[in-house]
Amino acid sequence: MKYSEEVRPGEKIRLDDYDTSRSCGLTKEEAREKADELGREMGELQELLFAAGDTALLIVLQGRDTSGKDGAIRFILNHTNVQSCRVAPFKVPTAEELSHDFLWRVHRQTPPKGGVTIFNRSHYEDVLVVRVAGLAPEKVWSKRYGQINAFEELLSASGTVVLKFFLNISKKEQEERLLDREKDPVKAWKLSVDDWKGRDQWDDFTRAYEDALTRCSTEAAPWRIIAADRKWFRDLAIAECIVETLRPMKKAWMESLESLGREQKAELEAFRASRGA
Amino acid sequence: MKYSEEVRPGEKIRLDDYDTSRSCGLTKEEAREKADELGREMGELQELLFAAGDTALLIVLQGRDTSGKDGAIRFILNHTNVQSCRVAPFKVPTAEELSHDFLWRVHRQTPPKGGVTIFNRSHYEDVLVVRVAGLAPEKVWSKRYGQINAFEELLSASGTVVLKFFLNISKKEQEERLLDREKDPVKAWKLSVDDWKGRDQWDDFTRAYEDALTRCSTEAAPWRIIAADRKWFRDLAIAECIVETLRPMKKAWMESLESLGREQKAELEAFRASRGA
Repeated sequence: MKYSEEVRPGEKIRLDDYDTSRSCGLTKEEAREKADELGREMGELQELLFAAGDTALLIVLQGRDTSGKDGAIRFILNHTNVQSCRVAPFKVPTAEELSHDFLWRVHRQTPPKGGVTIFNRSHYEDVLVVRVAGLAPEKVWSKRYGQINAFEELLSASGTVVLKFFLNISKKEQEERLLDREKDPVKAWKLSVDDWKGRDQWDDFTRAYEDALTRCSTEAAPWRIIAADRKWFRDLAIAECIVETLRPMKKAWMESLESLGREQKAELEAFRASRGA
Repeated sequence: MKYSEEVRPGEKIRLDDYDTSRSCGLTKEEAREKADELGREMGELQELLFAAGDTALLIVLQGRDTSGKDGAIRFILNHTNVQSCRVAPFKVPTAEELSHDFLWRVHRQTPPKGGVTIFNRSHYEDVLVVRVAGLAPEKVWSKRYGQINAFEELLSASGTVVLKFFLNISKKEQEERLLDREKDPVKAWKLSVDDWKGRDQWDDFTRAYEDALTRCSTEAAPWRIIAADRKWFRDLAIAECIVETLRPMKKAWMESLESLGREQKAELEAFRASRGA
C-alpha cells in the first residue's frame, strides 16, 4: 500500500485533485500501530546507513503554515538515532546568506555520507514565498526550477537519497489549527496577524506549489504528496516512504559491514599471533 | 590587445596549438609597466565592486605544478584591497569534505556580493587529478563536467562573475622551475619525488585539461588560456582580463553609489533641520 502519492517526472499537478484528508480506510489506532512498526524499521535502517557510511539521506519537508512540519520531524527523530540525524531549519535568510546565490546556504547543510538531514523548509521557499511575496523578480525565480533540479541531481549522483514531502492540508483544516493555537496559551504567542493574512494568498501559494511539484519532480528526486489533515496518517505515509526507499539498500549495507568485520577480525588475529598470545 | 586566449563555448581545445611562451612582442619591462597600470585600475574597480555590493567576483586559477598559481595570486593581492579579497586553496579533500558531493566544499567558499575570492586550484581538480590518478571511476568523473557547468551557471545567474584561468606552461619550463626549486634552500623542502613522478603523467594531464577546457567553457564562464612560461606576461594577461571584465560595470556602480550618496545626504540634512542646526 502506498500511503504517499509520488509525482512522476513530467506529470502536471493540480492540488485540487488530491484529497488532504485521505486515510486509506485506516482508523487512527490502526495507522498509529503501523507507523510505530515502520518507525522501528526506519531506526534500524538508519543505523545501518550510518554504519555502512556510503549513503546520505536528505529529507525535505515543505508545506503551508500549520501543515505539520514540526510534528513530522518529531516523529522521525523519535524513531532514529539523534547522533547522526540533524534538522536544518531555513528561515528568513540572513544578510550573509542573501549575499550568495540561493543554494549556498542550502548546500552547506546537506548530509554527509552516513548522515540524515531533515530540511524544515528548504531551497523551495525561493520559488514559493519569494515568488508569491514578490521578493525577487520573475526573471530570477523562474530560473530556479532548473537550478534546483541540477543541484538535486548532483546530490543524488553523489550518493545522497533525496526524499521530498509536501504536507498537503486543506484551507479549512488550517483555519482550525490556527484557532486551536490561539486558544492554547503555550502556542498563542507564536501567532501573529501575518498568519491570518497569509490565508489571503492561499490560491497564490497553491499555484506556486503546483509549479514546484510539477517542475521539480525528477527521476533523481521526485516529490511525494502527503495527505496531512490527519496527523497520524501523515506520519504513517512519511515513515512508509522512508522505509521503502532504504529497505532495498539493506542487503548491500549488511554485506559491506560483514566484510569489514571479517577484515578487522583477521587484523586482530594477526596482531595477537604476532604478540604470541 | 587580448593577451589571454578565451575558449569559446563548443570550441575543441588542443593544447599543442597554444604557445606557452607567447608575449605578443612585449619586452619584460614593457609588460611589467602595462601590468602595473592595469593593476592600479583593477584595484579601483575592486573597491567599486565592494562599495556597490551587487556583484561578486570569483577567480579560478588552475595549472600544473610550478605553473605560477601562487605568483599570480601575489600579483592580484598586491593590487587589491585585502579586506574584501580572499584566497581559497583546495588541497587534498578532508574526510569531511569527501563525505559530501565534490561541489560542497567549493560552494561554501564562493564570494558574497561585493567580495572577490581567488580559488587556488578548484572543483576542476575533480576532473583532473581525480581522473588521471584514478581516484574516482569514469562513471563518476564523467558526469562532473555537466555538474560543474550547472553550478557555474547558478553562480553567474546570481550575480557572480566567474573568471577561469588556465596557466599554461611547457614541459621544459616546468623542468627548469623544478631544478630551480631544488637549488633554492628556501623552496627545496617543498619538493618531493612525487613532483618529478608527476611529469610521467604529463600527457594524461594534457588530455584531462583539454577536456575540461573544451567541455566547461560556457557563455556564463568561459576558460581563458594564459601563456605562463614568462611570469611577467602571465600577470599582464590576467590583469587585462580582470580589468576588461569589470570595466563595463563601472558606470552602473558609480551611478548607484552616487544615488546612495544623495539619499544619505538628504537624510542627513533632514536630520539636521529637525534638530534646528
